[in-house]
Amino acid sequence: MVRDQKAIILLLQTQKQNPIMHKRKVVLYIAMSLDGFIADENDDLSWLSAVEKEGEDYGYNAMQERSDTYIVGRKTYEMVLQLTGGMFPQSKMYKCYVITRQTRERENGVTFFNGEIEWLITKLKREEGKDIYCDGGGEIVKLLMQKNLIDEYIISVIPTILGNGKRLFIGGIERFPLKAIASKYYDSGLVQLHYKRV
Amino acid sequence: MVRDQKAIILLLQTQKQNPIMHKRKVVLYIAMSLDGFIADENDDLSWLSAVEKEGEDYGYNAMQERSDTYIVGRKTYEMVLQLTGGMFPQSKMYKCYVITRQTRERENGVTFFNGEIEWLITKLKREEGKDIYCDGGGEIVKLLMQKNLIDEYIISVIPTILGNGKRLFIGGIERFPLKAIASKYYDSGLVQLHYKRV
Repeated sequence: MVRDQKAIILLLQTQKQNPIMHKRKVVLYIAMSLDGFIADENDDLSWLSAVEKEGEDYGYNAMQERSDTYIVGRKTYEMVLQLTGGMFPQSKMYKCYVITRQTRERENGVTFFNGEIEWLITKLKREEGKDIYCDGGGEIVKLLMQKNLIDEYIISVIPTILGNGKRLFIGGIERFPLKAIASKYYDSGLVQLHYKRV
Repeated sequence: MVRDQKAIILLLQTQKQNPIMHKRKVVLYIAMSLDGFIADENDDLSWLSAVEKEGEDYGYNAMQERSDTYIVGRKTYEMVLQLTGGMFPQSKMYKCYVITRQTRERENGVTFFNGEIEWLITKLKREEGKDIYCDGGGEIVKLLMQKNLIDEYIISVIPTILGNGKRLFIGGIERFPLKAIASKYYDSGLVQLHYKRV
């Protein structure tokens, strides 16, 4: 795996010559409580049911339709395995990358990636394809935001205070502005915030 | 100052007999970055200027109009003094309470309160008056939320990632649901979220 600075520079240079790269977007599509948590301390997700409504998917199908690649942090990946009893349903729909510090063999239809995230995103953007769906958690979101690699943020705010748990935005990065797109209020009380990279 | 449990129970009992108490609301009216910070580590507030727009006050005058009392944490109070060179302009408009663990004499038109926050809110609600405007910071918001004492949350989300600083929701409390009111999107990119106590 190519990981050194030179390879990244080379890829970034190639990116400039290849306009197709700007078409694939990295999209963070995720739900959080008003107080900024994506899961409580026990990975309980029952609080999300507060906004469940027949016939309303809050753009999930559209998100699925526009994406063919899925990236997620290792802890979130393992949380999904816990919840499903060892399955990773996303690998049936997307090319899946699990970001980790570990060196691991492919399993459950996912590829483990332990290199520079910027290198992976640049590589994916060089390839033709649909958008890249990022599903958290906080550490991978931080890694991507540190390099301003998220093109679009679609964040569903659930009308719940979790009070504790795993944060979507764990801090420790530099300030940057975003371009807001009109947000959407749903009858269930969910507010979907929408931003683009400036 | 009455602080013991018995006095609180007595006040809560009186509250039940006095319907007027339910009319005054505790309203959290505050701005935060998308990643949940209300100030950066240096108390710089320049990022708020991203949404400044002539003739648009995001409901600030309406908030001022509906309130006659203002409560704020001691650190936020001192941040204001720093920014203004020792003045506390809110004391010209409201009856001001600064919540602190310290015992301090009245100054700058504010009363320092170091008792049980529940006792203060119950006392204020027993009195006739307009709403009670809470302006943070994170510690006083936590204290109020711990007891579910905030009647209304009006949170302006600024299209900026601060990346670091002082959080609005510092965590360490129990889960509870909120009732969402339609949120409002402004052309500047500010999204104003609005919730009520269930």
